[in-house]
Amino acid sequence: MTSQGALASPAAAPAGAPAVSPAELRIYGLGGLPEVRPGDDLGALIGDAIAASGLGLEATDVLVVTHKIVSKAEGRLVELAGVEPSVLAERVAREAGKDARQIEVVLREARRISRMERGIIIAETSHGFVCANAGVDASNVAEGVVCLLPVDPDASAARLRAVLGARFGLDPAGAPGAPGTAPGVIVSDSFGRAWRNGIVNVAIGVAGMAPLADYRGQHDAAGYELRASVLAVADELASAAELVTHKLEARPVALVRGYVPPTDLPPGTARDLVMDPTRDLYR
Amino acid sequence: MTSQGALASPAAAPAGAPAVSPAELRIYGLGGLPEVRPGDDLGALIGDAIAASGLGLEATDVLVVTHKIVSKAEGRLVELAGVEPSVLAERVAREAGKDARQIEVVLREARRISRMERGIIIAETSHGFVCANAGVDASNVAEGVVCLLPVDPDASAARLRAVLGARFGLDPAGAPGAPGTAPGVIVSDSFGRAWRNGIVNVAIGVAGMAPLADYRGQHDAAGYELRASVLAVADELASAAELVTHKLEARPVALVRGYVPPTDLPPGTARDLVMDPTRDLYR
Repeated sequence: MTSQGALASPAAAPAGAPAVSPAELRIYGLGGLPEVRPGDDLGALIGDAIAASGLGLEATDVLVVTHKIVSKAEGRLVELAGVEPSVLAERVAREAGKDARQIEVVLREARRISRMERGIIIAETSHGFVCANAGVDASNVAEGVVCLLPVDPDASAARLRAVLGARFGLDPAGAPGAPGTAPGVIVSDSFGRAWRNGIVNVAIGVAGMAPLADYRGQHDAAGYELRASVLAVADELASAAELVTHKLEARPVALVRGYVPPTDLPPGTARDLVMDPTRDLYR
Repeated sequence: MTSQGALASPAAAPAGAPAVSPAELRIYGLGGLPEVRPGDDLGALIGDAIAASGLGLEATDVLVVTHKIVSKAEGRLVELAGVEPSVLAERVAREAGKDARQIEVVLREARRISRMERGIIIAETSHGFVCANAGVDASNVAEGVVCLLPVDPDASAARLRAVLGARFGLDPAGAPGAPGTAPGVIVSDSFGRAWRNGIVNVAIGVAGMAPLADYRGQHDAAGYELRASVLAVADELASAAELVTHKLEARPVALVRGYVPPTDLPPGTARDLVMDPTRDLYR
């Protein structure tokens, strides 16, 4: 492993330096955005935050944007006062001690209910994501309002990429990572997992980058073909971003600098991260 | 959200600077380790890699170590030539076109089989992890050999932490993150997920840090209590590390610098990340 890896290392080590110089990735949490409101030009606000940070924007960067500000800008907010709960929503809310109107919004956002127990609703969204409450969330929005996932988070990511590319002189149509190309954009949310405690940030929208790294057909140093090795790098980037954006902070955008895609796949979308129902053993 | 976050920001912005200066996290992939063999002092080898990198080791760092080198150092390797497959292993292997001896090792590592279909075995390990092939893996080891998960990855992480603490003059018994305390150590592996394509790096061993960040009881800027917000930060750190360590590279260790735990929990172990079976809706 060592010798092949060293040969594959992009940076040749100067004499006296470590045999393998450390690879380095930096993640910046960008602040300074105002409270985002429906109709706001989110790309312009994020562009302002990048400009204020002094970091600029590079072709090999990846921007990770918390979906909450995307949803707010796109007006994906529901006033509970105007929601008439269904019979099922009333029953679930009563048993769980929750707001029936909020449960009703969850049911409306669901394409399919995967599990419904003890007030927990794990639902499949219109996008195919399986997550708690179909992505409906009451945090970081005004009292009496809940926030939905963007209608098409991939399109949201692509729009932000186009706006930011234009502002910083980077071409969304260029070859990914090549000089002058607009960087990858990820829209993220925090999802629970089967089997493990705690939620983690994942990618729900992707533009301008490959969400998966596919090692299949490649060989390790021992000659073993890596058959089961498809890495969900967009999810890993989203998780990495959460380490600087956090829940209560004023940093809804992270700029990842220095990420080198490990395999050479064309750009894709977050749909590539959704497991085909026929392959999913845990629907 | 903005004002509270800005107040909580550790770095006060100087006049003329951005209102919220960017938070920054750096992840270094450490190379230069030799091929690890059973009985090797892995803590010493990692210490050498840290020393060679010139980065040093700080109390607020987090080291993420790929389990493969931990397993190798601990001799968790099985020669398939000496394995006698059971009847079930023979049948599964025949149907899936796989090596019956390797399937047998998977069955022996399993405490419980969660799913077994089309040659895919999702199993619960002795640690309580639910993952493909009970963590048994043939990549990055010699031909005819498979690698098991460490017997007790939390203990492995704690041992590495003690050895590295001693070498760099940092006390494993100090208060986490306080000057002079040994940093957190995570042992990682790549696991598949329900519902989503691709594997991601997660924490299977943790020492000297809180694996979860618990926002429950805290309030967002709108006054909404964050009820469902327990973040699996150790998993997010493991995922972030994978972005620089990669599969085929000679960088089995990542040093994360600049991570600030968002909530104030005492150190824990990777057992905290394993969902209680009575709460798990997807066993």
